[in-house]
Amino acid sequence: MTEPLKIGLAGLGTVGRGVVKIIEKNGNDIARKIGRPLKVTAVSARDRTKDRGIDISDYTWFDDPIDLAKTGDIDVFVELMGGEDGPAYEATICALERGLDVVTANKAMIAHHANELATLAESKNASFLYEAAVAGGIPIVKALKESLAGNEIHRVYGILNGTCNYMLTRMQNEGKPFDEILKEAQAEGYAEADPSFDIGGIDAAHKLALLTTLSFGTQTSFKDVYIEGIEAITLTDIMAADDLGYRIKLLGVAVKTPEGIEQRVHPALVPKSSAIGEVSGVTNCVCADGDFVGKVMLVGPGAGEGATASSIIGDIIDTAYENKGHVFTLPAKELTPYVQAPLRAHEGGYYVRLALKDLPGTFAAIATRMAEFGISLESIVQRPVADKITPVKEDEIQPASVVIITHQTTERSVSQALKAIEQDGHIAGEPNMIRIERL
Amino acid sequence: MTEPLKIGLAGLGTVGRGVVKIIEKNGNDIARKIGRPLKVTAVSARDRTKDRGIDISDYTWFDDPIDLAKTGDIDVFVELMGGEDGPAYEATICALERGLDVVTANKAMIAHHANELATLAESKNASFLYEAAVAGGIPIVKALKESLAGNEIHRVYGILNGTCNYMLTRMQNEGKPFDEILKEAQAEGYAEADPSFDIGGIDAAHKLALLTTLSFGTQTSFKDVYIEGIEAITLTDIMAADDLGYRIKLLGVAVKTPEGIEQRVHPALVPKSSAIGEVSGVTNCVCADGDFVGKVMLVGPGAGEGATASSIIGDIIDTAYENKGHVFTLPAKELTPYVQAPLRAHEGGYYVRLALKDLPGTFAAIATRMAEFGISLESIVQRPVADKITPVKEDEIQPASVVIITHQTTERSVSQALKAIEQDGHIAGEPNMIRIERL
Repeated sequence: MTEPLKIGLAGLGTVGRGVVKIIEKNGNDIARKIGRPLKVTAVSARDRTKDRGIDISDYTWFDDPIDLAKTGDIDVFVELMGGEDGPAYEATICALERGLDVVTANKAMIAHHANELATLAESKNASFLYEAAVAGGIPIVKALKESLAGNEIHRVYGILNGTCNYMLTRMQNEGKPFDEILKEAQAEGYAEADPSFDIGGIDAAHKLALLTTLSFGTQTSFKDVYIEGIEAITLTDIMAADDLGYRIKLLGVAVKTPEGIEQRVHPALVPKSSAIGEVSGVTNCVCADGDFVGKVMLVGPGAGEGATASSIIGDIIDTAYENKGHVFTLPAKELTPYVQAPLRAHEGGYYVRLALKDLPGTFAAIATRMAEFGISLESIVQRPVADKITPVKEDEIQPASVVIITHQTTERSVSQALKAIEQDGHIAGEPNMIRIERL
Repeated sequence: MTEPLKIGLAGLGTVGRGVVKIIEKNGNDIARKIGRPLKVTAVSARDRTKDRGIDISDYTWFDDPIDLAKTGDIDVFVELMGGEDGPAYEATICALERGLDVVTANKAMIAHHANELATLAESKNASFLYEAAVAGGIPIVKALKESLAGNEIHRVYGILNGTCNYMLTRMQNEGKPFDEILKEAQAEGYAEADPSFDIGGIDAAHKLALLTTLSFGTQTSFKDVYIEGIEAITLTDIMAADDLGYRIKLLGVAVKTPEGIEQRVHPALVPKSSAIGEVSGVTNCVCADGDFVGKVMLVGPGAGEGATASSIIGDIIDTAYENKGHVFTLPAKELTPYVQAPLRAHEGGYYVRLALKDLPGTFAAIATRMAEFGISLESIVQRPVADKITPVKEDEIQPASVVIITHQTTERSVSQALKAIEQDGHIAGEPNMIRIERL
């Protein structure tokens, strides 16, 4: 048995603790696999005295992660602090400049600095690995970089945010409105105090930007991801979708087209009885469509102590094996410039929900406007609004919704028709329009 | 760009043709990824003149694959002939003894010679890779060996045979009996002329034996896989399961218990609305339960030209990267002896179908016998037999089935109760008993 592989952990939150626990429990077996033990030698975190349920007294303590990266007696620098800039980014740069292998779970940092980090790592012949940054415990990064590398990937997509999927699943299962579920998810630790990164789709977009580069060999362009979160999804939408045979999921979708790359994160209706429709709770999934392999889907926990730490350890093992793949499948200098595809006609139908002001004549007016814009309807049904928490007084007029499912059409047509319907004065507030995806 | 990686292909059937096609179409992109081109330099097959739709005139021809392995100007020997012994095995041994990297899709050969092949490869510092041998295009071998290597895996299971899943799905969707679907599947090329390897569960058992070794670090023991095929599954079973909220799937399941390893291949009822229940047609899936990652599931095409060739190319790329993992996660000499777990009480209920001889008093008799053996019933219903192809004459007594769903019990109790019911003389033929799995 040769020298231990020395690990420096910057960040001792949930994932850092998980990494320590895996090495404590499975360290012997891992050593038998890779021929040398893994050993945490140095750590850095905000508070040295905090009780984390793990013993860190044997590790060299660094108040400053940059010091750890620059001077720690380590082979691998594991960055688990998070944040697109600041100490995480600076320490990572220092570690790579020193020629250390770096393993990170920091999707925001990579989405914003992908090219610089990959170029630096490759110039130093250091590994820069980030399996944990995309879909937690799901080994999709390695699958795209290595196992599926014989394929031209045309499309990559999935459920990339556990918080959103957890909330949508609970709204579905318990019939509770968005705000109530959000509060409960925050109390249980499934949503952050400031949930906007998750429910606003930013987190999913970070991951999608990395999947795009890995799949299509283009430079990373987070700013070109079209992002729509789940804030506008109501219980009425979820229940109406259910009745119509669909689930609502926050999807990240990247497609390679002859005109460029399309990247989008938005809620979508997917058929209930489909593999992706069955992915519920905090579970994530990623699908890749390859020209030879066809469709491959990976499903698993998208976050959490053990799952994310499992990916971190997998990457550390890869540095022990000295695997020689590049940061993003291709060498950084070979990545082609990102070209944004012009907004395409969405292929598929739309779900539209309108809040009605009054009823008489409304159906006819709506259907007529839709027909004027060439939109053919699969169904148009009135639904009670499910989201009211406070009971409505008896003499108050109960608001109602109309839910429309269109046949295949374009986003442009639907938008124009809805504008006309709004001007007719039949509806209150903003219409909610959700794409139907048949993936 | 350095020297090409020279590939020798032994076998030019479906998969071999796929390998040539991938290199033709995506060879340039692969070379950009790995820094050197892939080049087929030598081939061997049974018939040199056969029209395969690919041009093999540039490759050095070998009548004998063993000659190719021994003397071909190649870096990687790709074995695509199949068969557990014979030329495939001999040529593989020759290639490894020469120190060549070997890539193969041959599950039967590995299931029978795992330890010898791994030991030989490791002694020669050669790679022996077989992603294509388990679940076609699904990158499960690499996921278990590398990405999930930080975990202790407790259970690995899945739908491992595309022919069986295709047949069961079509019986379900089209309401046609087993024999009719088998004939159609054979005509379409989804089932072999002699389908016994597939429908008898042998092929799934080969794959399961490899997954067991990869997951648990034990020596491969194909002979200890309990095997039951799908031959006894009738349309009546499929329709009854459907009514009760289940699908019937041929599962391979390996579990690590304190007493040893349990490996079994058999049909099972799984809930319709579950991820595994949604895996239909020729699609395969493999799930692994790890102590830290939780449950990870990979879904994709289990066979076919492009999908299997995609895995072969992934392995060839791995040899180009000189990835250093061992053949079965652990070094061959570290694999622990296989200990067969004593047959455990099945955890879950059973589906039982009985063909009735006569009706009066039968329900009561059956229910009484079940109660005598402590088996509590969830339901007992009479069903028409769906499998009759020839119409029954009007004055003939139509045979009927009784379908029983039990609560959790043991296989022993169910077997004993069924024996007693048989002796009572109420039923005709063999009862059909299928495990219900909630995975």
